[in-house]
Amino acid sequence: MASTRNIKEFLQAGSRLYLPSVSIDCIIFGFHENHLKVFLVKMKHTNHWGLPGGFILKEEHLDDAANRILKQRTGIDDLFLQQFHVFGHPDRSDKKLHMETMRREGITIDDAHWILQRFITVGYYALVVYSHVRPIPDTLSEDCAWWELDEVPALIMDHNELLQKALQSVRSHLQHHPVGYNLLPARFTMPELQKLYETILGKKLDRRNFQRRMLGYQVLRRLKDTRRGVAHKAPYLYSFDLKKYRKALKEGLKGGW
Amino acid sequence: MASTRNIKEFLQAGSRLYLPSVSIDCIIFGFHENHLKVFLVKMKHTNHWGLPGGFILKEEHLDDAANRILKQRTGIDDLFLQQFHVFGHPDRSDKKLHMETMRREGITIDDAHWILQRFITVGYYALVVYSHVRPIPDTLSEDCAWWELDEVPALIMDHNELLQKALQSVRSHLQHHPVGYNLLPARFTMPELQKLYETILGKKLDRRNFQRRMLGYQVLRRLKDTRRGVAHKAPYLYSFDLKKYRKALKEGLKGGW
Repeated sequence: MASTRNIKEFLQAGSRLYLPSVSIDCIIFGFHENHLKVFLVKMKHTNHWGLPGGFILKEEHLDDAANRILKQRTGIDDLFLQQFHVFGHPDRSDKKLHMETMRREGITIDDAHWILQRFITVGYYALVVYSHVRPIPDTLSEDCAWWELDEVPALIMDHNELLQKALQSVRSHLQHHPVGYNLLPARFTMPELQKLYETILGKKLDRRNFQRRMLGYQVLRRLKDTRRGVAHKAPYLYSFDLKKYRKALKEGLKGGW
Repeated sequence: MASTRNIKEFLQAGSRLYLPSVSIDCIIFGFHENHLKVFLVKMKHTNHWGLPGGFILKEEHLDDAANRILKQRTGIDDLFLQQFHVFGHPDRSDKKLHMETMRREGITIDDAHWILQRFITVGYYALVVYSHVRPIPDTLSEDCAWWELDEVPALIMDHNELLQKALQSVRSHLQHHPVGYNLLPARFTMPELQKLYETILGKKLDRRNFQRRMLGYQVLRRLKDTRRGVAHKAPYLYSFDLKKYRKALKEGLKGGW
């Protein structure tokens, strides 16, 4: 959290620093060697895991706040964060959790305290190569880790719901937008690209259909080199045509109306 | 606005009734006989048009607030509103506009007044048959009307940007989700469905490609009857297969990975 050194300072300065009622939560999916994981933080002095999140400075753009929070909570910089949903259930906050912290920090519990109010949260997700990231916990968290999706424990508040909705959004986005740049090496084979799709979607895909559709989207460039040192027929190498890739990111893949 | 009778009451009661920092804006697209329009309201005592919007009651779900606001501002009930983006620029509010109103209503202008604070707004859109709707302006607006998209004037605050982003979102959604139920009569011809798509997308589509893709999605049922009383060959009538239509709304149209 921005200029605060510890939890007590953060809790005391919050009403002066942050916009009331709105928070941000980040769902960072990490891909590496055909595994998809999610980045979680462990709240200090508790056994609770949750999503990295935070608040918006009074003069700060919402999207800038998301990037700042991500950087502070994870050490991850310069990541493309995508807004995907706002969660606005009136009972979604967990006052008890915050009251425990206030008690521990010697702060008088007052119903009007800013952290005990209702917060609507804006969800952002991102996909990243997790081996490129060395996350360091910040002052609010005592631990952070990449979790396998099917091993994620019961998280604080509605964070399991946020995670599920983010996963749905990534999969839905994948249906009609390219994915892979920043997640794969600059040159990759078709089976490697297919593995990425299969990992994110959580299901096997047909090899021929995959190749036909992928090539049909015209965002790939087939290179002259083939992959050497493999047992069978050397597979072609591909790279993304970045201009077409970026256009498709914005406008959707070919095949639209 | 909920229980407030007039602007003065609304401005005075707001800080007690509403969540600070967050507002809602609704972009209602109206379709009728191959025209796409947008619903706008004219602020009382001004020449300014804007989107129908409002605030969230302190104990109210965000999505319920959007539906309540829509009902109050437009008389439109039971509409499927879709969240599409949160607008969070720190300078997006127009204090001058609110200060004029306060002055007119004899309310002391105080920088700490709730309406003069920064608001992040959650955008919702919906598609509706506009001939089915008889909108009545509420206490905050003196007029409301359906505007042709290319005749929309300069709106208050960032509302032109909200409208553009909503239109992009509708068009993007249309690429991979079915549209038409609630907008077309129960039985319709392929050219009528194509006209709907063309109107929303703002461009002509190839007749054969359209028909082939539409049928490929398997959300249509071809009926035994044909349309009578037309000059040329009587065209087939179709209806939506609601079970498949709803599945595709949720999961995307066939042809995904």
